[in-house]
Amino acid sequence: MKAVGIIVEYNPFHNGHLHHIQKAKELSNADIVIAVMSGPFLQRGEPALLSKWHRAEMALSGGVDLVIELPYAFSSQHATIFAQGAVQLLDSICCDAICFGSESGDIHEFIHTYYLLNKNKDTFNTSIKKHMQAGSSYPKAMAATFTEMTSMEDVVDLTLPNNILGFEYVKAVLSQDLPIELHTVQRIKAGYHDTDFTSDTIASATSIRKEIMEGNSLEPISPYVNAVTLKILEDYKQRFAIFHEWEKYWPSLKFRLMQMTSTELQTIYEVEEGIENRILSSYEKASSFHEFISLLKTKRYTWTRLQRICVHILTNTKKEEMNANNTPAYLRLLGSSKQGRAYLKERKKALKLPLISKLSSFQHSQIDLDVRAASIYTVAAQAPHQKTLLAMEYSQPPIMKD
Amino acid sequence: MKAVGIIVEYNPFHNGHLHHIQKAKELSNADIVIAVMSGPFLQRGEPALLSKWHRAEMALSGGVDLVIELPYAFSSQHATIFAQGAVQLLDSICCDAICFGSESGDIHEFIHTYYLLNKNKDTFNTSIKKHMQAGSSYPKAMAATFTEMTSMEDVVDLTLPNNILGFEYVKAVLSQDLPIELHTVQRIKAGYHDTDFTSDTIASATSIRKEIMEGNSLEPISPYVNAVTLKILEDYKQRFAIFHEWEKYWPSLKFRLMQMTSTELQTIYEVEEGIENRILSSYEKASSFHEFISLLKTKRYTWTRLQRICVHILTNTKKEEMNANNTPAYLRLLGSSKQGRAYLKERKKALKLPLISKLSSFQHSQIDLDVRAASIYTVAAQAPHQKTLLAMEYSQPPIMKD
Repeated sequence: MKAVGIIVEYNPFHNGHLHHIQKAKELSNADIVIAVMSGPFLQRGEPALLSKWHRAEMALSGGVDLVIELPYAFSSQHATIFAQGAVQLLDSICCDAICFGSESGDIHEFIHTYYLLNKNKDTFNTSIKKHMQAGSSYPKAMAATFTEMTSMEDVVDLTLPNNILGFEYVKAVLSQDLPIELHTVQRIKAGYHDTDFTSDTIASATSIRKEIMEGNSLEPISPYVNAVTLKILEDYKQRFAIFHEWEKYWPSLKFRLMQMTSTELQTIYEVEEGIENRILSSYEKASSFHEFISLLKTKRYTWTRLQRICVHILTNTKKEEMNANNTPAYLRLLGSSKQGRAYLKERKKALKLPLISKLSSFQHSQIDLDVRAASIYTVAAQAPHQKTLLAMEYSQPPIMKD
Repeated sequence: MKAVGIIVEYNPFHNGHLHHIQKAKELSNADIVIAVMSGPFLQRGEPALLSKWHRAEMALSGGVDLVIELPYAFSSQHATIFAQGAVQLLDSICCDAICFGSESGDIHEFIHTYYLLNKNKDTFNTSIKKHMQAGSSYPKAMAATFTEMTSMEDVVDLTLPNNILGFEYVKAVLSQDLPIELHTVQRIKAGYHDTDFTSDTIASATSIRKEIMEGNSLEPISPYVNAVTLKILEDYKQRFAIFHEWEKYWPSLKFRLMQMTSTELQTIYEVEEGIENRILSSYEKASSFHEFISLLKTKRYTWTRLQRICVHILTNTKKEEMNANNTPAYLRLLGSSKQGRAYLKERKKALKLPLISKLSSFQHSQIDLDVRAASIYTVAAQAPHQKTLLAMEYSQPPIMKD
């Protein structure tokens, strides 16, 4: 059986993702689709709208055959580490191909750009450094460098968010010489930052989240998600009385900051360059998480980098814990289809990392970070629901689909 | 001017306290009364019902002339450290006498017992050790030892809570040879643990708190507190929509425990002898703070000791921070009467520690602990009230009474 890997967050799953899954299979001619999916906290430094188990179920409903959790050690990270962790997981589960969404849609552009930049690495890096020394954030510096080098032909536009992430996947595969085919599918219709519904069946995750958080009913999103997803969202709301978002963690974050000295704050992952003092002198002035990040925002720090720092404070993740966990140590299965299980049986002996279906069966400092993140993810819910959500982390077996 | 010192918590202030103040002045023939009062967290390891500023105002209404904060470094501590810190503060503000409430009411009994036990120190300590090795808590071991040594005459009964605390004050004064007269006044009518109102004007703080927390109106406590206290309680409830109690800090404590590894928990003050593992394996099972403590309770650990440990976890107080602050470093003024201010003017040059009226005027790791405790004290309140309470800690000048 041939497997194509995709890297996802499904926050929540929608028709654009369905299109991605179908195209991934088509382009790679694969029998099954393996998704590496972020756990409770996402790449942009935000809690997922609903638990990983519920998002795994959505993934299965859309045709994914195996859902593997992207561990906390890689999920709330900047693009390079996020991509490396995800690609290594796909490699260790023996994926034959990877297919990602991009604005470009042309895989040759990505590959060409990779070799071109690799050849001109020094010029490229010097320029990025120059922009950063002038106060730009890394993404801004990269985009500026890239724009300056427009003389190059057939290159992918690295000022666009999905191209940037896609390029990191390509880099992770090519730089490590992994035996994985590369494919990309052009994202359709709605741009990532669109907040209004723009077509009949496709809307961006951002606009869907906005409707979910602000609307009174889930009805308006029904054209853009499949029936299973809509039902899961409705049940989650009913059962746990929450969709998770940063503002609901703000009291906990604030309480934790009250407890901390600047020295202790410096032990937290990504807290660097004096940001600890800015954090400690700002949080009391803020009435919301959004206001807090606005107060912290500078040219040097992107909004998402600040949010990721806050995720690490919230989960109390130390530099030493992350440094000790910079390569994936296990494959944690969140869900499988019948086809997915057949694939696992076939490849059993070829897997490069232990496959975990039960939490209690495996001990590792990397999975301790996942458990902690999953616990802390529950604090936004009210007490009785919190307990139920917490129990899921410990006892929920992988979701099985026939 | 002659000054008598008293050590108080006023949680809340009531007619029994009024009686204590009057008797203290009478017995010592003092012109003014100086109260050393616990800040936000109390000796039994509990948050005070309302802020220290409001309790200071109650104290002034009852005839106290100067209210000095007992720093966090001494306020949530077992009797010996609590008493030593408080007595040292009274000594450094030049108190001529100390008067404490006790079941005994006879100061000669205390003094006699001190010298007697001092003479038989070895026998006494050996017996305490023996009882503790058999699994008793320190107070239980002391009470048992004491009961065994009943052959001694004219001794104070050290199985009673107020006698125990009073004995620690006597010990602190006599062991350090401080130039302070000792007085005690017998506590009247209501025993400390009574939870029903037992006389016309005197009720225990416990029964008053119970009525405040459980009753619909403050009316039923009006016979037992003065009019100012009743008004302050009513205003506090109105303005901040809260009386502080452990259960309201339980979500924050739980969140913090979710964040912690056993190694980190061991850095917290008083977390010893493997209790960290008991704590980490119990909190998820508990639905309330009360249930949590019940799960932790053993013969070796008293309820109050466990509560104090939880206070230190909540305030994130490390062993090293407490060890670096084992003697008082300042006198923080919370309130004064005209007479009190005259006394301070008179003794200005004799004070043995800096007197602080404004938080920003003094820097010390000991006062950092107070500020942190006061911040954390506010997390039980709802967001807007939390901000107001927090602002008080920074900007509230000492309460002035004419």
